[in-house]
Amino acid sequence: MAGTRLQTPPPLARDAMRVTPLGGLGDIGRNMTVVEHHGQLLIVDCGVLFPEDDHPGVDLILPGFGAIADRLDDVVGLVLTHGHEDHIGAVPYLLKQRPDIPLIGSRLTLALLREKFKEHRLRNTVELVVSDGEQTQVGAFDLEFVAVNHSIPDALAVAISTEAGRILHTGDFKMDQLPLDGRLTDLRAFARLGEAGVDLFLVDSTNAEVPGFTTPERDIAPALDRVFDRSKQRVIVACFASHVHRVQQVLDSAVAHGRKVVYVGRSMVRNMGVARDLGYLKVPANTLIEMRDIEKFQPQDVVIVCTGSQGEPMSALSRMAASEHPVIDLKPNDTVVLASSLIPGNENSVYRVINGLTRLGAKVVHKGNALVHVSGHASAGELLYCYNIVKPRNVMPVHGEARHLVANADLAVQTGVPRKRTILAEDGTVVDLHRGKASVVGKVDAAYIFVDGATVGDISEAALTDRRILGEEGFVSIVAVVDTRTGKVVSGPDIHARGFVEGDTVFDPVRPQIVTALEAALADGTDDTYQLQQVIRRRMGRWVNDTLRRRPMIVPVVIQT
Amino acid sequence: MAGTRLQTPPPLARDAMRVTPLGGLGDIGRNMTVVEHHGQLLIVDCGVLFPEDDHPGVDLILPGFGAIADRLDDVVGLVLTHGHEDHIGAVPYLLKQRPDIPLIGSRLTLALLREKFKEHRLRNTVELVVSDGEQTQVGAFDLEFVAVNHSIPDALAVAISTEAGRILHTGDFKMDQLPLDGRLTDLRAFARLGEAGVDLFLVDSTNAEVPGFTTPERDIAPALDRVFDRSKQRVIVACFASHVHRVQQVLDSAVAHGRKVVYVGRSMVRNMGVARDLGYLKVPANTLIEMRDIEKFQPQDVVIVCTGSQGEPMSALSRMAASEHPVIDLKPNDTVVLASSLIPGNENSVYRVINGLTRLGAKVVHKGNALVHVSGHASAGELLYCYNIVKPRNVMPVHGEARHLVANADLAVQTGVPRKRTILAEDGTVVDLHRGKASVVGKVDAAYIFVDGATVGDISEAALTDRRILGEEGFVSIVAVVDTRTGKVVSGPDIHARGFVEGDTVFDPVRPQIVTALEAALADGTDDTYQLQQVIRRRMGRWVNDTLRRRPMIVPVVIQT
Repeated sequence: MAGTRLQTPPPLARDAMRVTPLGGLGDIGRNMTVVEHHGQLLIVDCGVLFPEDDHPGVDLILPGFGAIADRLDDVVGLVLTHGHEDHIGAVPYLLKQRPDIPLIGSRLTLALLREKFKEHRLRNTVELVVSDGEQTQVGAFDLEFVAVNHSIPDALAVAISTEAGRILHTGDFKMDQLPLDGRLTDLRAFARLGEAGVDLFLVDSTNAEVPGFTTPERDIAPALDRVFDRSKQRVIVACFASHVHRVQQVLDSAVAHGRKVVYVGRSMVRNMGVARDLGYLKVPANTLIEMRDIEKFQPQDVVIVCTGSQGEPMSALSRMAASEHPVIDLKPNDTVVLASSLIPGNENSVYRVINGLTRLGAKVVHKGNALVHVSGHASAGELLYCYNIVKPRNVMPVHGEARHLVANADLAVQTGVPRKRTILAEDGTVVDLHRGKASVVGKVDAAYIFVDGATVGDISEAALTDRRILGEEGFVSIVAVVDTRTGKVVSGPDIHARGFVEGDTVFDPVRPQIVTALEAALADGTDDTYQLQQVIRRRMGRWVNDTLRRRPMIVPVVIQT
Repeated sequence: MAGTRLQTPPPLARDAMRVTPLGGLGDIGRNMTVVEHHGQLLIVDCGVLFPEDDHPGVDLILPGFGAIADRLDDVVGLVLTHGHEDHIGAVPYLLKQRPDIPLIGSRLTLALLREKFKEHRLRNTVELVVSDGEQTQVGAFDLEFVAVNHSIPDALAVAISTEAGRILHTGDFKMDQLPLDGRLTDLRAFARLGEAGVDLFLVDSTNAEVPGFTTPERDIAPALDRVFDRSKQRVIVACFASHVHRVQQVLDSAVAHGRKVVYVGRSMVRNMGVARDLGYLKVPANTLIEMRDIEKFQPQDVVIVCTGSQGEPMSALSRMAASEHPVIDLKPNDTVVLASSLIPGNENSVYRVINGLTRLGAKVVHKGNALVHVSGHASAGELLYCYNIVKPRNVMPVHGEARHLVANADLAVQTGVPRKRTILAEDGTVVDLHRGKASVVGKVDAAYIFVDGATVGDISEAALTDRRILGEEGFVSIVAVVDTRTGKVVSGPDIHARGFVEGDTVFDPVRPQIVTALEAALADGTDDTYQLQQVIRRRMGRWVNDTLRRRPMIVPVVIQT
């Protein structure tokens, strides 16, 4: 892979284009790519990464904006390929730095973004709605949008052309050949662009390790129908709140079985409202009911469509599994369908929900025991088709962890792309496309930016390291008041411990040791508060380690009277 | 499932047996079952549970010993079905309470346990080595041991008979029909016991949700051979340190390809030494080399067999992936094989290792892309065979989370066991076998016991809740010295925050607010330290929430002069 050391790139040649990923190459999330030509910047996507256990307490992780902080005025547009959080979730944070960046995307994508702006109280944004096949010029860039099929409607790939060459960015995609809405990934456009010449191909790597072909979305209908056929009670289906086609299938099966549908979960209600208003979701009349009316219907006449498929603790489904939902009370033999993926890292939460539902007597149907989910990303077989149709001069895998990017590069090589024309970049790697060749020319800082409560970028890795220590070991604080004139400890040590062995008496043996150590230091003439605190830290640290074999954070406070 | 409320069971009838699981029903781990008859207790297994992210900082979780704390003198024996940590890992902790409990197990199981005792400095234990088919009497219990096949050699099922009936406990097992060592699960014994009458069948549930049959261990040989055939450099194989047969296959393939083998990782070296000494592992002469000699051989002449297959941070493999191993330096095109399962909850750690190895240019072979692992547990198809061969009167699924236990019970019902004779118990559920019928008669406390550093059972759920808060939010401590006579704050507030926004100035706005609030309280006559601390807590809590939208732990300390 490209080196990890920072290295300032050289000035960009007039006849070159520069591509710098600021997120999404190394993680599944926070996708953002900056394309530069003639001093202008075009951004593709601006998403969030949801933190895992190595970033405790962090709400969101943003792309490495910092790299373009002093060049925001050069940005001529921000293309949003589709409406998923990992592609649009960070837009409000970028727009807080420059509100009038032109936003370019499909109708549904921009509609979902607008809902997000309401939460962030952002207004008066500049928008350009584009649709399948449309061409437009944005600054120095000629753009062409290509329909792609994904797990949300209205997703687009984008071709970016300048005199320096043509880049084709797939966005997130798969190649379902019988999609529910009939909107195929436009391989004819891919072919035409390939004929004209694609100099650099940026390709979704998520499923590059998965052999074969992604199962069509419509193939889950039989499993859903089977659930409805067998259930004599309530059916609850959890899925992603943006998966319009999945919800469409649940609606269709519900209607066919004479059931009403109720949405539960704020984002589900909101997104399905948007999708219906724009015509992406077809809802037959008299299908939907409100949650408050649910008790007016027999259990076998209702389907609940809810959020929480990843075991999110505060979600509707988790609360049902813990018998804590204010309205919905699960009964034995109710059926719960998790019509969703299991994102790595969420296993414990999801299995906790499944075990909770099982204890309540519910039947749980999930992708482990029925075909109730298919992926939204192209598998290896589909990626091979793409490479063979586009025949790109250079390839740069995007959207994946290191293992995915490497697997995707190997696929490109198998179709005949030379290994040295296959760029394994990471976040911050600067790649120049110059005279038909892409090559790594530098590396900029694309570090994580943490959203933590109301603060953005104020939490450092050091604070997270502290959280990890606190979360594993707890802390002990020791407060002592000393009189440097008499050389005595006049109050304390007051010892408070949390996340640690309980009971006030546990520290009785160490108190006199601390007093002795402090007074010895005072007798030696030590009167610096920091140094006296270090005396406490050392004494307590050693005692806790020797006695309890733990290494809590030690917080000494010395007050001089 | 059986209720979760505690309920004292009635006295046990003379012609009844009582079965109480104190661990392993609700988790994969800390397996322990107590069988009682005529006032005597026989224990089956005594293992640990490895904590996950909901038990931060905890080293190990023990079974609910507390339920038999005052009856340890009634224990006539402890049967260990096999040598895995989740079956033997808690024995030292139980023996610290009564060192002379007779330990009953196979040769390898007791040998591995003896190694564990050395670490715990336990001596003079009482042992009874048993072997396949052996019958013995232990107090009021007639025991018969039955060979079973599992992912460690020398595993046993146990039949426990008294005048009240016969219990058959499978331990952990699968039914590999072509095992490497030729030692089959003894279905003829299962059949004979079934003919004689099995009143209660305790059955491993781990893979009850998995349809079909577990692939034979020997079927991974081609994938290993393929790795050795293709590699022109070093090969590293990570697997569980107790998986003797897996290591045997690596050794066999290594020898066939003219490579030397080096063990890396303390538990790997120790266990393979024990297994070889006892004849369970066949090591051809001149095969093993020491790690210190590794540089004397060409990379293509060496195989490293190491620990760390679950991404454990301090393991040999994790350190190689981070380029931090003191001896072994991975090179591009080295091959790393993860010949192991991926235990739920470990995904992030394992993928972190795979991504690290990938970045170094290594080829990573794992169960996701090659057949380099098979499970140690019987799948649904095998369990059906068992039920049909044994034809038990009553069934109690063991060894699993709720979802596994329910799936296993469903399999029993499909073979004709009546639903009401299928007991869905949890840890602590008391089940009596009386006149051929098993039924739930009570529920005892089988709560987790946490090993935390040198302490056992001293860490409470409350302390863990504190750790979770600290780990997510950090803390703010505020120290103020007050003079109740003058009603003034004479020193402070000193504010220290960790795991939180950095910088001393962030708290400047709240300091005067705290002084004002404290002095107002003092003016109102409040002179109780606790109440003054509450004044600080409320003021700081509100300020942090309003300003930073966080909820750190707040630790106020008031010192009166």
